[in-house]
Amino acid sequence: MTSLQKDTAMGMPVATLEDSMRFVDGVVRILDRRIFPERIEWVEARTPAAVASAIRDMVTQSSGPYYAAALGMELAARQAVGLDSQHTRAALAEAGRVLATARPTNNHPAEAVARILAAAEDASNAEDYRARIVDASHAAADRYRERSQALAMHAAALIPDGARILTHCWMDTYLVELVRAGRSLDRQWEWVATETRPFLQGARLTAHTLAEMGESVTLITDGMAAAALAPGSTLGPIDAAVTAADRVSMDGCVINKVGTLGVALAANAFGVPYYALVQSPDPEAPTATDVVIEERDPEEVFNTLGHRTASRLLTRAWYPAFDVTPSRFVSRIVTDRGAFHPAQLADYFGVTE
Amino acid sequence: MTSLQKDTAMGMPVATLEDSMRFVDGVVRILDRRIFPERIEWVEARTPAAVASAIRDMVTQSSGPYYAAALGMELAARQAVGLDSQHTRAALAEAGRVLATARPTNNHPAEAVARILAAAEDASNAEDYRARIVDASHAAADRYRERSQALAMHAAALIPDGARILTHCWMDTYLVELVRAGRSLDRQWEWVATETRPFLQGARLTAHTLAEMGESVTLITDGMAAAALAPGSTLGPIDAAVTAADRVSMDGCVINKVGTLGVALAANAFGVPYYALVQSPDPEAPTATDVVIEERDPEEVFNTLGHRTASRLLTRAWYPAFDVTPSRFVSRIVTDRGAFHPAQLADYFGVTE
Repeated sequence: MTSLQKDTAMGMPVATLEDSMRFVDGVVRILDRRIFPERIEWVEARTPAAVASAIRDMVTQSSGPYYAAALGMELAARQAVGLDSQHTRAALAEAGRVLATARPTNNHPAEAVARILAAAEDASNAEDYRARIVDASHAAADRYRERSQALAMHAAALIPDGARILTHCWMDTYLVELVRAGRSLDRQWEWVATETRPFLQGARLTAHTLAEMGESVTLITDGMAAAALAPGSTLGPIDAAVTAADRVSMDGCVINKVGTLGVALAANAFGVPYYALVQSPDPEAPTATDVVIEERDPEEVFNTLGHRTASRLLTRAWYPAFDVTPSRFVSRIVTDRGAFHPAQLADYFGVTE
Repeated sequence: MTSLQKDTAMGMPVATLEDSMRFVDGVVRILDRRIFPERIEWVEARTPAAVASAIRDMVTQSSGPYYAAALGMELAARQAVGLDSQHTRAALAEAGRVLATARPTNNHPAEAVARILAAAEDASNAEDYRARIVDASHAAADRYRERSQALAMHAAALIPDGARILTHCWMDTYLVELVRAGRSLDRQWEWVATETRPFLQGARLTAHTLAEMGESVTLITDGMAAAALAPGSTLGPIDAAVTAADRVSMDGCVINKVGTLGVALAANAFGVPYYALVQSPDPEAPTATDVVIEERDPEEVFNTLGHRTASRLLTRAWYPAFDVTPSRFVSRIVTDRGAFHPAQLADYFGVTE
């Protein structure tokens, strides 16, 4: 029984976007988040490289690329049937390489790939290797969800009943599990979601998912976040700003969807705690400068869901997909092992799971 | 010769939006900024109340309502032909009332109306009264431009050659005059414009006008402002954040398009000066709480230029049209009488014009 099946059985609310990645008839099917929820369409990836392209094109994002990378490895294993051991391993290594490097900033897919490959390392023959890859791919997805559940319980413990939470972009599995963690603690929360231009993850994915799960959610544009966090706003007080993090460096800096920095600065200026959620900090990134910040096609800034919305005289735009929030503006890094002050992240690795 | 004619004659660049308000054949024609520059369409207002509706519906905004209010008064005077003195004055008073109260936060239209009515106060008869109203309406528009030119010269003096300027929303006459002031001082600047959701004034009006005037402009989404202001951004350093202000209270707080607060907080956090441009602080507003912050239809947050862009499950949004930037985050208030530290605004009224 998967975690999702368990949640449904327990009567917990379920979100459409939880089931946005499937392996069917030898094809990885990925729900196209670029147009969801206006239309429900699936992109079909028939090779690991096609899965990587879907990640790069943002057919799926946030937690999505992790699950997609795991399914991409399963796909590669199933397509390797008939190859000898050496060629099977080479095919999986190549699949892992393209999946792990599809986008540079979030390294969850790379972790999934490394974990899956490691699990098959000691296989006795090609068939055993492929079977282990498939099992490890499933285990990786389950593990991601379970760590997200642990993280969500630690985050929920920080957020009192009746709180109004401002969130930016789309926390994906963390968000769904945070809602469930709140329910399990009998806490009622209200949500304020930023729309998150240019891709509108907040207006589409976050707001839709919260509404599906029966939560109260108010939409604002990105420029309204500071006004919402300021004292005396007519929206009512915000009790916590909560976002996911694509990466957290060991010095406590948060790398997340561009716009997170502005939310954190406003929260800090007005005394609202800012919590960044990540399964674990990245021991490979001592500081934020060790993380590559992806810059995407500026064309996306000129457009909104495919419509040109900027003056056609414009030729220049800037689109960093992520920004860096210095640790001094972060209240807690919430991980699967608990909530840490950003100056004490080294403790994460001193705590037994 | 109007100021605009003078600028053209001097070879200074001219912007389409400078000529966005006309009195033709007894009708006030207002360029529809809700769809500019994608389409050039004019809204025709045949009564002062129709001019007020156009202001309320944001057919024009920023400096626009000031000019519209002046033309609305001219319209009322011309339509009063044939009325006796008492009814002429009553008609103008009523026109002034609807024009001054079309939107609550920016009080420039109310200033224009008060000035125009005062100029006609001592008229000897109905015809003289109407003639004085028309003259005063023209004089009010000229005065607004001249004060904007003075303000722009004071602002330009603060911004060094080679600077990269981040601006939010649409400064209208202030922007056009600031570009000209920079040219007159032989300063070359680069501009970064936020798109300014939900209305996209930055992506459409500001970016278009700067491009028309031959300036270099880079578009960003509102959520990217903090990342742009942070040290080490790949956009290159920002040397000043500059916005207009719809109102400045005597305690130095800036009331301007929502999103300004986030820009000011980020500028402050990263040591970039933030300059707010306003012809004068408002002696009627001792503090920011004396200013009414308009809240607009939340429906506008669900949509982008008429297209639904948020999940259809969403029912709640929040749309404060303006936010309040506390004085501690403001470097200088730049007026037609010079640049003032926000703690020293009282000096504005101690300086002779």
